[in-house]
Amino acid sequence: MLSSIEDSPLHLIANPKSMAFFGASNNIVSMGTNQLLSLLSLGYEGRVYPVHPKEEKVQGLKAYRSVLDLPEVPDVAMMVLPTQVVNPTLEECGRKGIKRAIIVSGGFKEVGGDGAALEQEMVRIAARYGLRILGPNGLGVANPYRKLNTTFIPHEGQPGFIGLASQSGSFVTQMFNYLANLGLGFSTALSVGNEANIDLVDALEYLGACPHTKVIAMYIEGLKRGRAFLEVARKVTRRKPVVVLYIGGSEAGRRAGLSHTGSLAGPDDLYGGVFRQSGVIRAESVTELFDFCWALGALPAPRGNRVIIQTHSGGPGAAAADACGRAGLQLPALADETRSRLAPYLPHTGSCQNPVDLTFTKNPGDFYSRIPKVLLADPGADMLLVYFFTPEPVLRRGLSQMGVPPEKLDEEATKVLDLSCRAVLKTIKEQDKPVIGYTWRSLEESFSRKLTEGGVPLYPEAERAARAMSALVRYHAYRVKMAESKIQV
Amino acid sequence: MLSSIEDSPLHLIANPKSMAFFGASNNIVSMGTNQLLSLLSLGYEGRVYPVHPKEEKVQGLKAYRSVLDLPEVPDVAMMVLPTQVVNPTLEECGRKGIKRAIIVSGGFKEVGGDGAALEQEMVRIAARYGLRILGPNGLGVANPYRKLNTTFIPHEGQPGFIGLASQSGSFVTQMFNYLANLGLGFSTALSVGNEANIDLVDALEYLGACPHTKVIAMYIEGLKRGRAFLEVARKVTRRKPVVVLYIGGSEAGRRAGLSHTGSLAGPDDLYGGVFRQSGVIRAESVTELFDFCWALGALPAPRGNRVIIQTHSGGPGAAAADACGRAGLQLPALADETRSRLAPYLPHTGSCQNPVDLTFTKNPGDFYSRIPKVLLADPGADMLLVYFFTPEPVLRRGLSQMGVPPEKLDEEATKVLDLSCRAVLKTIKEQDKPVIGYTWRSLEESFSRKLTEGGVPLYPEAERAARAMSALVRYHAYRVKMAESKIQV
Repeated sequence: MLSSIEDSPLHLIANPKSMAFFGASNNIVSMGTNQLLSLLSLGYEGRVYPVHPKEEKVQGLKAYRSVLDLPEVPDVAMMVLPTQVVNPTLEECGRKGIKRAIIVSGGFKEVGGDGAALEQEMVRIAARYGLRILGPNGLGVANPYRKLNTTFIPHEGQPGFIGLASQSGSFVTQMFNYLANLGLGFSTALSVGNEANIDLVDALEYLGACPHTKVIAMYIEGLKRGRAFLEVARKVTRRKPVVVLYIGGSEAGRRAGLSHTGSLAGPDDLYGGVFRQSGVIRAESVTELFDFCWALGALPAPRGNRVIIQTHSGGPGAAAADACGRAGLQLPALADETRSRLAPYLPHTGSCQNPVDLTFTKNPGDFYSRIPKVLLADPGADMLLVYFFTPEPVLRRGLSQMGVPPEKLDEEATKVLDLSCRAVLKTIKEQDKPVIGYTWRSLEESFSRKLTEGGVPLYPEAERAARAMSALVRYHAYRVKMAESKIQV
Repeated sequence: MLSSIEDSPLHLIANPKSMAFFGASNNIVSMGTNQLLSLLSLGYEGRVYPVHPKEEKVQGLKAYRSVLDLPEVPDVAMMVLPTQVVNPTLEECGRKGIKRAIIVSGGFKEVGGDGAALEQEMVRIAARYGLRILGPNGLGVANPYRKLNTTFIPHEGQPGFIGLASQSGSFVTQMFNYLANLGLGFSTALSVGNEANIDLVDALEYLGACPHTKVIAMYIEGLKRGRAFLEVARKVTRRKPVVVLYIGGSEAGRRAGLSHTGSLAGPDDLYGGVFRQSGVIRAESVTELFDFCWALGALPAPRGNRVIIQTHSGGPGAAAADACGRAGLQLPALADETRSRLAPYLPHTGSCQNPVDLTFTKNPGDFYSRIPKVLLADPGADMLLVYFFTPEPVLRRGLSQMGVPPEKLDEEATKVLDLSCRAVLKTIKEQDKPVIGYTWRSLEESFSRKLTEGGVPLYPEAERAARAMSALVRYHAYRVKMAESKIQV
């Protein structure tokens, strides 16, 4: 275990005050240029020293002929260079006294043969100078809290609570937009690439200690240090959840991973055992990886696996019940007191079974405030799953019929939706049980966005919501078991 | 088998020239009013006769005191009435000579007891007058080709190729927006409700004969006529694919279905057997139901299960390979000729394994036209799965660096994206293998929309794409087997 986060080789890489930048130029189609532009456009506040053999200025910054000419020893050397140039440059960085490098260049272990030999040489150079390397064949790091993004694509959205350690740089840089659309974001995301001398276990340890990280996501093609992973994961999962996607277990995934980062994958069962023994939650797809992180990072601990479903539509209710059942969740009957407290809000077509199906209401306040309040107070309910299907076209039609003129419709519809949303968020905050939503409306619509920005995990189908709740239950059950067993790890 | 589509009791219901409308008023919060407004706002071209005890006009239409006063015998009686009023009204409709009814009202079999008795009476009245009923406890029908939408929510998007038969009205009306966002739409969608005397089998038979329907989706809580379903499905699946979501197989789903439409579900295995024997493809969620319909309705028949994956990012490629493997698809090695034809387009960091990983390119034309053309010509490829991740922010940054002024960025970015999109659509159309996409960008972004509107099924993750391809393979394998076996059904 790290005694301080600053002991991690990744601390300086994720929080550099200065960087030497190799491979950026004024050529706009080069990868390095684009990575420098991502860094600058997010407003990185550290010092950046482009190193370029010819240019006087690179993207408006003074450029240097050699790293040896820099006015200080930068915290990190960032390299987006042709394969053959990497090792000689790394050697110079070592001589300059630089202790950390992010190497984006590919053509090493992942291509085998000469590439693998070049990577061995890289590791030897690094050892000689005490250099720690993120990469090669990775995209570096995004730490939006430091306005740091070394990846190809401009950062979008706000800093968030998901720490990511990934053997794919794409799952750092290509997720910015995806997460931002859900009101989520990375705390720090690390692309470990070929893991020359910083690996997934180091990344896990760092994110375990990172104060902005509430939940850790990992994309794994193969672990180099299985035993170390088990030990570190056991410690981390006592304090925060870890979710992994392991794709090396299938033959197709194993082969693709080998050609991608040169990872040697192991049997699916073996990895599954390691994950289970260390309290790590396993996801089956990238979508699920972030689905689980959403629930685990945003929600309080449930006391058990009993879910009440609240809906105004029978089919979505029944499909959610089915999904919850398949995900191993219980649907308890409502307590008698709950049923009598619900009665005033339910029309005769409604159902106070579980799912609670309102069928319809003339008063949105019932659905968004009074009913969830009653359901959350039920002693048999550990969690509440709500169908948040609020179609704006119907609302606008209603307002129009009430005499709201067309030019005022946007404003009035927004008001009504805001009211409903505030009501439900207030109800949720006044108690301590997890509330999760699902909907068929777009998550990019204004009502959905308000909910997610208010901290409610909202999934575009019941199945994903149910599986995320199940992950939440399993993680907290593990934590309780560990706390009770008082096993020292 | 229907000798003509007009023999189906649903033909008149889905294509009425005139309707009596019970339960709409000038009260804007009533369900019936909203359903009438949905009908009118889509521009229904038939004649609509509101029947109302007091009003002279309903939503601008002349209202009648009684159905007996109507100037003609309308094709359909649409009822959104209090439970107790339904049967007497139906009796009057019978006397008027009306032969079809859509009954939205609930409070019948699904609530048990008196409700069940009322439904039995309804069936007796219907039998007396030769009346066929869609419902009760359903939302009716959407046939956008006829500008017909009797449901609660205004129709969105274009008429499409998905026929839906559903025991939930929500999965008709609440899917308009969802499908429209994917560039999809219903041909005809039927909410069968409690199936008084028109059931899912009738709906399947009708959609099997419907010329606009290329693929049939079914949401099933329980089948009333298992044997009839098997017989009809066997005939229909010889001509078009049928995808079902059956939720009655889990205990939670069974109970929810019972309280929703009073359906009696059967064991999951039994239903699974019925589906398999009849060539019906089973989906595991509502999302998957429409995912499968998308691939099955939009794509040509693949010759086998061998997929080539084309990507520019290792992680998404490896995750897709893993997903394809898990979905039972094969990832063949590329033919030697394909590899040599690819060589000019691949940088040294790229991979011409399968996944084909470009890593990067300076020429988008390679990715969107030349490379897919080469891959589709590979004799070992039955399908192509392409990672369509085209981040606009990177494109805009590039254009800006090339000197495009800010006010021209939108226009220029659109031009570039249009070009790429047209190139890939042209490549796809010039051959006859299925091409499927996946992406982490929003499907609501302009590039995604252009692709989907061009007919390319595009999924927001590789797993869903892989499962949809697997469904496509399984359906066409079944059809080939049936054609070869020459079994008469």
